[in-house]
Amino acid sequence: MEIKIFAGSSGKEFAQKICDYLGTELGKSRVFTFTEGNTYVKADETVRDKDVYLVQSIGLHPNNEFTEILFWVDAFKRASANTVTVVMPYFSYAKGDKKDEPRVSIRGRVCAECIELAGADRVVTMDLHSPQIQGFFKKPVDHLFALPILCEYVKTLNLDDLVVVSPDSGFTKEARNYAKYLKTSVAIGDKERDDHSENAKIVDIVGDVEGKNALIVDDFSISGGTLIDVARTLKEKGAKKIYAALSHVLLTEKGVQKLEDSPIELLISTDSVNNPYIQNSDKVKIVSVAPLFAETIGRIDRRESVSPLFNEVPNKIFENI
Amino acid sequence: MEIKIFAGSSGKEFAQKICDYLGTELGKSRVFTFTEGNTYVKADETVRDKDVYLVQSIGLHPNNEFTEILFWVDAFKRASANTVTVVMPYFSYAKGDKKDEPRVSIRGRVCAECIELAGADRVVTMDLHSPQIQGFFKKPVDHLFALPILCEYVKTLNLDDLVVVSPDSGFTKEARNYAKYLKTSVAIGDKERDDHSENAKIVDIVGDVEGKNALIVDDFSISGGTLIDVARTLKEKGAKKIYAALSHVLLTEKGVQKLEDSPIELLISTDSVNNPYIQNSDKVKIVSVAPLFAETIGRIDRRESVSPLFNEVPNKIFENI
Amino acid sequence: MEIKIFAGSSGKEFAQKICDYLGTELGKSRVFTFTEGNTYVKADETVRDKDVYLVQSIGLHPNNEFTEILFWVDAFKRASANTVTVVMPYFSYAKGDKKDEPRVSIRGRVCAECIELAGADRVVTMDLHSPQIQGFFKKPVDHLFALPILCEYVKTLNLDDLVVVSPDSGFTKEARNYAKYLKTSVAIGDKERDDHSENAKIVDIVGDVEGKNALIVDDFSISGGTLIDVARTLKEKGAKKIYAALSHVLLTEKGVQKLEDSPIELLISTDSVNNPYIQNSDKVKIVSVAPLFAETIGRIDRRESVSPLFNEVPNKIFENI
Amino acid sequence: MEIKIFAGSSGKEFAQKICDYLGTELGKSRVFTFTEGNTYVKADETVRDKDVYLVQSIGLHPNNEFTEILFWVDAFKRASANTVTVVMPYFSYAKGDKKDEPRVSIRGRVCAECIELAGADRVVTMDLHSPQIQGFFKKPVDHLFALPILCEYVKTLNLDDLVVVSPDSGFTKEARNYAKYLKTSVAIGDKERDDHSENAKIVDIVGDVEGKNALIVDDFSISGGTLIDVARTLKEKGAKKIYAALSHVLLTEKGVQKLEDSPIELLISTDSVNNPYIQNSDKVKIVSVAPLFAETIGRIDRRESVSPLFNEVPNKIFENI
Amino acid sequence: MEIKIFAGSSGKEFAQKICDYLGTELGKSRVFTFTEGNTYVKADETVRDKDVYLVQSIGLHPNNEFTEILFWVDAFKRASANTVTVVMPYFSYAKGDKKDEPRVSIRGRVCAECIELAGADRVVTMDLHSPQIQGFFKKPVDHLFALPILCEYVKTLNLDDLVVVSPDSGFTKEARNYAKYLKTSVAIGDKERDDHSENAKIVDIVGDVEGKNALIVDDFSISGGTLIDVARTLKEKGAKKIYAALSHVLLTEKGVQKLEDSPIELLISTDSVNNPYIQNSDKVKIVSVAPLFAETIGRIDRRESVSPLFNEVPNKIFENI
Amino acid sequence: MEIKIFAGSSGKEFAQKICDYLGTELGKSRVFTFTEGNTYVKADETVRDKDVYLVQSIGLHPNNEFTEILFWVDAFKRASANTVTVVMPYFSYAKGDKKDEPRVSIRGRVCAECIELAGADRVVTMDLHSPQIQGFFKKPVDHLFALPILCEYVKTLNLDDLVVVSPDSGFTKEARNYAKYLKTSVAIGDKERDDHSENAKIVDIVGDVEGKNALIVDDFSISGGTLIDVARTLKEKGAKKIYAALSHVLLTEKGVQKLEDSPIELLISTDSVNNPYIQNSDKVKIVSVAPLFAETIGRIDRRESVSPLFNEVPNKIFENI
Repeated sequence: MEIKIFAGSSGKEFAQKICDYLGTELGKSRVFTFTEGNTYVKADETVRDKDVYLVQSIGLHPNNEFTEILFWVDAFKRASANTVTVVMPYFSYAKGDKKDEPRVSIRGRVCAECIELAGADRVVTMDLHSPQIQGFFKKPVDHLFALPILCEYVKTLNLDDLVVVSPDSGFTKEARNYAKYLKTSVAIGDKERDDHSENAKIVDIVGDVEGKNALIVDDFSISGGTLIDVARTLKEKGAKKIYAALSHVLLTEKGVQKLEDSPIELLISTDSVNNPYIQNSDKVKIVSVAPLFAETIGRIDRRESVSPLFNEVPNKIFENI
Repeated sequence: MEIKIFAGSSGKEFAQKICDYLGTELGKSRVFTFTEGNTYVKADETVRDKDVYLVQSIGLHPNNEFTEILFWVDAFKRASANTVTVVMPYFSYAKGDKKDEPRVSIRGRVCAECIELAGADRVVTMDLHSPQIQGFFKKPVDHLFALPILCEYVKTLNLDDLVVVSPDSGFTKEARNYAKYLKTSVAIGDKERDDHSENAKIVDIVGDVEGKNALIVDDFSISGGTLIDVARTLKEKGAKKIYAALSHVLLTEKGVQKLEDSPIELLISTDSVNNPYIQNSDKVKIVSVAPLFAETIGRIDRRESVSPLFNEVPNKIFENI
Repeated sequence: MEIKIFAGSSGKEFAQKICDYLGTELGKSRVFTFTEGNTYVKADETVRDKDVYLVQSIGLHPNNEFTEILFWVDAFKRASANTVTVVMPYFSYAKGDKKDEPRVSIRGRVCAECIELAGADRVVTMDLHSPQIQGFFKKPVDHLFALPILCEYVKTLNLDDLVVVSPDSGFTKEARNYAKYLKTSVAIGDKERDDHSENAKIVDIVGDVEGKNALIVDDFSISGGTLIDVARTLKEKGAKKIYAALSHVLLTEKGVQKLEDSPIELLISTDSVNNPYIQNSDKVKIVSVAPLFAETIGRIDRRESVSPLFNEVPNKIFENI
Repeated sequence: MEIKIFAGSSGKEFAQKICDYLGTELGKSRVFTFTEGNTYVKADETVRDKDVYLVQSIGLHPNNEFTEILFWVDAFKRASANTVTVVMPYFSYAKGDKKDEPRVSIRGRVCAECIELAGADRVVTMDLHSPQIQGFFKKPVDHLFALPILCEYVKTLNLDDLVVVSPDSGFTKEARNYAKYLKTSVAIGDKERDDHSENAKIVDIVGDVEGKNALIVDDFSISGGTLIDVARTLKEKGAKKIYAALSHVLLTEKGVQKLEDSPIELLISTDSVNNPYIQNSDKVKIVSVAPLFAETIGRIDRRESVSPLFNEVPNKIFENI
Repeated sequence: MEIKIFAGSSGKEFAQKICDYLGTELGKSRVFTFTEGNTYVKADETVRDKDVYLVQSIGLHPNNEFTEILFWVDAFKRASANTVTVVMPYFSYAKGDKKDEPRVSIRGRVCAECIELAGADRVVTMDLHSPQIQGFFKKPVDHLFALPILCEYVKTLNLDDLVVVSPDSGFTKEARNYAKYLKTSVAIGDKERDDHSENAKIVDIVGDVEGKNALIVDDFSISGGTLIDVARTLKEKGAKKIYAALSHVLLTEKGVQKLEDSPIELLISTDSVNNPYIQNSDKVKIVSVAPLFAETIGRIDRRESVSPLFNEVPNKIFENI
Repeated sequence: MEIKIFAGSSGKEFAQKICDYLGTELGKSRVFTFTEGNTYVKADETVRDKDVYLVQSIGLHPNNEFTEILFWVDAFKRASANTVTVVMPYFSYAKGDKKDEPRVSIRGRVCAECIELAGADRVVTMDLHSPQIQGFFKKPVDHLFALPILCEYVKTLNLDDLVVVSPDSGFTKEARNYAKYLKTSVAIGDKERDDHSENAKIVDIVGDVEGKNALIVDDFSISGGTLIDVARTLKEKGAKKIYAALSHVLLTEKGVQKLEDSPIELLISTDSVNNPYIQNSDKVKIVSVAPLFAETIGRIDRRESVSPLFNEVPNKIFENI
């Protein structure tokens, strides 16, 4: 089967990078919004019996992006695509993964089911908020990790005496993985979070940070609040320079401003979210994970194992981040 | 079973009117949007074993409203509601009811299936773009009509020598129903519409309109273009005063302005869409269909037949429009 | 994959024409009815991993034909066919596409769902009663049109001064498509139809028909009543010769007799329905759409686009109608 | 909940008997067949939140009856019935319960699934061809037995020195149940049946029949062939008078004629199939099982156990057979 | 596509024989049970886009084996296998195929549905307890028969004057098939079985057995009780030597001891169940059906018909039994 | 509707306690295992239209208990239960909640789906391994917590100067909840766990424990290894007396022995698992959560909110633990 890559409205740039990596052309298509708000999608070339990859995160406009994905998948299936793979580097509603209060929805499951109902045969995504979310899908999920790419970039900064900092105990396990990759140690922030509040107070840092360069790691940041609180506490505890590495960055204008004003030297993240607010900040370094997704698609198509990409970064990918 | 009515974020006013009619209290709930765009919904009172009615059109923000409906339904079901009925006076994606081009989605079917997958047991809606859309649902649909209420209001205008005008041949059958209710005759506009263009040229009017008051009828208007073109052609043909009656009105600011500048005396429509743009125009008269929906809910709950409401307007409803 | 074409009990002739066009042999199979009425189907050659096409309209014996299709599809799937495509040139129950009265079934949706449940992977059909019916199916539908073939045949009649006549306003859009293809104008009949009555009164004809040859067009005719009423009215209005072009013709003996006695010169239709009653009438010209379906199957198998066939008639098809 | 009983086109008489037994009125409805063969069904009174029972066997016109059932169930569900129970005293396609040849359908499973897909919540039936067929349904099946009623009638004939005869080894277990009820012994016919042939040769009778009255028992007879062959062999073996008791009788004209000419004194069966051919034969005694179904419906409605009816015949039932 | 064969925990030996026959290597995998009882499965080589065959009967540890199958199928599907075929030579829960008492489960249907839900695309099995069980599956089932292989082995024993004995009337049809293959006659045991009792009393033998070698045939034996009762009665009736041929043998230690002490010379069965208890008995001859399953898998993979294997034993298979 | 509580084979004692609390009688039923391993279940009293609660953990014999649940649910549904609620205080396979290695199954999702497929309408469970597992279910889950009951018991021990200890960072959040309930502070163990190893090394304890009584908390323990390691490290760090509180305890003989030999004074847990190994140990105190489940069932039945039970222990419950 031939593969064909299409981009949703917020995935155009990312999809183009995937195509560049794979040396293929982006599928012609159109998306637009009618005056009254309806989303309309149309593929402008045949997909009959092709393996279609639709590239679109559920990111800063999650309802539009989610609904659009449903329409794309339906359109491809009705046009007789052989398979449809939804490539969503970020899946925003994965955060809604539990019923921690009475009478709420498990939004991650709702979205997963609808995407499968529309006809998706596979999902490729990265750093889901919790690994259990794979179980919300019935279809195969290729779950990628930004860690190796972020760490490789961190290595190029040549930071000596580095400590990896988990902002809270919940991210300790992943922070240890960062530390293992960077061959260094871990410190853990102790934070308390009230329900739904996006900001939280950092109580303390457990572990030795004095006189060290610190790399705060997390899966995502929305307001930047936790990050900056941890950074400030690290400063108080005598840390040298503060860096941060995040898989997904959702900061909007206000958040970027707070980052600019904070003791953080540099925030390293990926292009998993189409985020216009971070483009012009000197304090944000975006590393592209499009090559990682492109390589994954290539391996899926060649029926090769994807798991080696979980632990190392092939040269071809690193050259394209 | 007890019933409990909840409102989605754009259905609050409409739901309140339903509750007023039924003499019941609106269910306590909250919806909000996180900084990064996620929608969160929560019911703040028990729905265990209740018959829940969620009131929200898929209107001017269709993707938000559709996604929110999915989350509401899931939340109610996981909270052990006995049944969940989605009351959506307007279902915007019903327009996407066919595959008239290659490689597009049948969006109405996609939305219908997802709403049912989320757990909806029944849908109550009004004047779907085509009657076949009921067949996109597997669950029972109560399909209401604005016609009797709109006509009753028109009657209060005491327009003599009235002719009902269908803007194009596709709406002829419904126009005849209006004419039958108003005991008058029909004329038909002859229009040509290019694909996707929201405006269309009116070629001609078939039928006698000279010296008559005209009532243009249609299921909805987005830009007002067709309406106004028909109105102008009617004027050219010697019609006296021009009125319009629409089930759903999606006009935004620009459309309202065009209406103000047009020969139309008055556009009569319903509150099926939560449309802030039409609030201040003297040329728009909004008749509430909330009493119609309230009466329907009452009859569903009392296990009475809903179909009598298709042809007549009980006093209690008329007093509340 | 290899393709294999099988015929249901009422699709044998049509399927043979498809095989002739494609230069393949019809799959061996048997269907019979036991004394007590049960239908039994069996494929007599292996279908393991083949792309199977089952050819059978749901036509003049709709319940037998529908039930038989379910059994065929199940038999093919249990025998490990790779895919099963149901080729039904006519889908009789598509007429049951709405709930226009209380407490009726949406029969088109019921049939569509059962065919998919039995295991059909795709449907190929022609001129569904309304385009929304595609949305009753979840699987891909290739929806063909008889219009180009019927028009090409009409062209061979060399009728000058032709007007295309839609029997009622509901078919106006399609009539315009006929007129566009034939580069001529349109007139519209104005008819009133009571519920369930198969006959209807023609009130008037809108448009210029005097002294012209008229071509009445419609998707199907059951009793011939509407057609003949329009024809008579056309005559009264001074039309020259009257022709008719229909996608599907369900006329039984009585209907054919009425046609013979009518002012219609020639009724042009297709072989979409296996209709024995029209074989011997000089007033009926059957144009085969089997080549159109055959070409479609070939394109599906070669993974080519089918949509070009919507607007033009390749030579190879025309030579075989 | 209130119950409401409706009849399909071939179940009217049976349903009326059920209503008489229960002292309720048959639901108003209409079924008709359009000129071109389409079946149309409509309930003429509200079923909103009622427990609906649809009475119709899949009998001598199985495809019509099966398709009609699908439409009825869909109509009731779309009209908001609380539950729909399909009461089909005979389920003809139960015979298609295995894949005993390559590339055939398991028709019983296909029908069961479609009936459930249409929305049936429960099935009430009698003497399925094999007990495994209950497993083709996912929903509850109340599986009744004609045995006690047939035996009670046989008792009224006061036949002394009776032997129960199973026509072949496959029915031995059931024949033993008849013998146990009638407190007598069993003999077994030894027959060979070629695939699909409805007639079969009786090779021998195992067991003592000489000088005895014989009661041949079976679940159904289509042509009467096996029955009559066994009867002849019994005569040859010196049996006195020959009777037969069958749950379902599908004999058509020819079969009844063969029965008339046979040594069988009396064929006792039920009204599970709407069979016009057996009405006028003196050799056929029809015992009604409508009271048995009525009693079952009553118990379902009163949430009582149905299983006691498997082994005994309450007086009220016997008085109404 | 490439095929890959894996073994469940109780299918290792059988799967290895299949691989030997096909000249392929068994897929690397691991299964283990955690201290607290959980089963864990993992495939240790890529299955991406492969046609996977999982070999494991549901045999002497049915709940473990069934649950393990579900986990295997899920693991393969989530690892993007193209198809997963469950090869279960014995399906123990097929015995639970009817609701012969109130308030029991149809366990065969439950297991079939769960296996399909987990993602199985096809099942290959042998001598199901009743042929209707195929209808519990929606997916294709290849249903093999041990009869030809067992008979070919019996032939090598050169038994003259042989009679095939069915232990009860329910197995008569199959016994006739054995007799036809062995070109000999049939006798039938007459047994009565109380509910759930695994032992049953043999009342009599119908047919001529005196002075003959007898071959008792059945689909399976659990305790050996029926077999041995029939054997004893045969001895009483003057039979010469007694043999038995069974598709599946579930005898545990006690059963084997009873067999050793019985008049049965030799019990011939297959390795469909991984049964350690029968390994050391001189009275049990195990014929491998692994070559039969291997040949079937080969034919499925080469898209050839499997049905010829129902009636004859190719040399290559016989050499490997 | 009436409720009826039944016990699975390993839930009898727990179910009896529920019935005692509710003042109702346990439903009569039987479960047994045939010689060859098959599980058989049967309800011995009518469940027609009842709300059935089946009580059985998936505990120390998870495959038997899981399979048995499927059969129970199917049996109840086929016997026309109104609803079936599966009450499983412990859900062992919840541990299999992610795909943390390639080519493994997400066993929690598989089990959840099968239980729902079998027909379960609701699940009541306690302290799932991760809260996301609720999202593996589509049906409502009432997710209870042992924390308040365990804490209330701990309070009765009158331990002064108590510190709550989380064995690793992953359980910190829950440990804080324990500390909040007990109005004390938290310390955190720092442990490293290799894949699949059930034992793990404790590296350190973060937080002040010297001279304090320590309460180690966790959701479950299988081998006791982690618990005892933490206990030893606590001792080294100068803690006074060591206690432990676990929701579920899976310790087998060896584990109990290790506990006896350890510095732990008392292990407090619940009867969520039917665990015979812990009955005779003086170091184990079992607090019953049956009253908590009973109260929950009562509230479900009375349509009251269950969530208040998450944070407090009503007197009636405490008196019955």
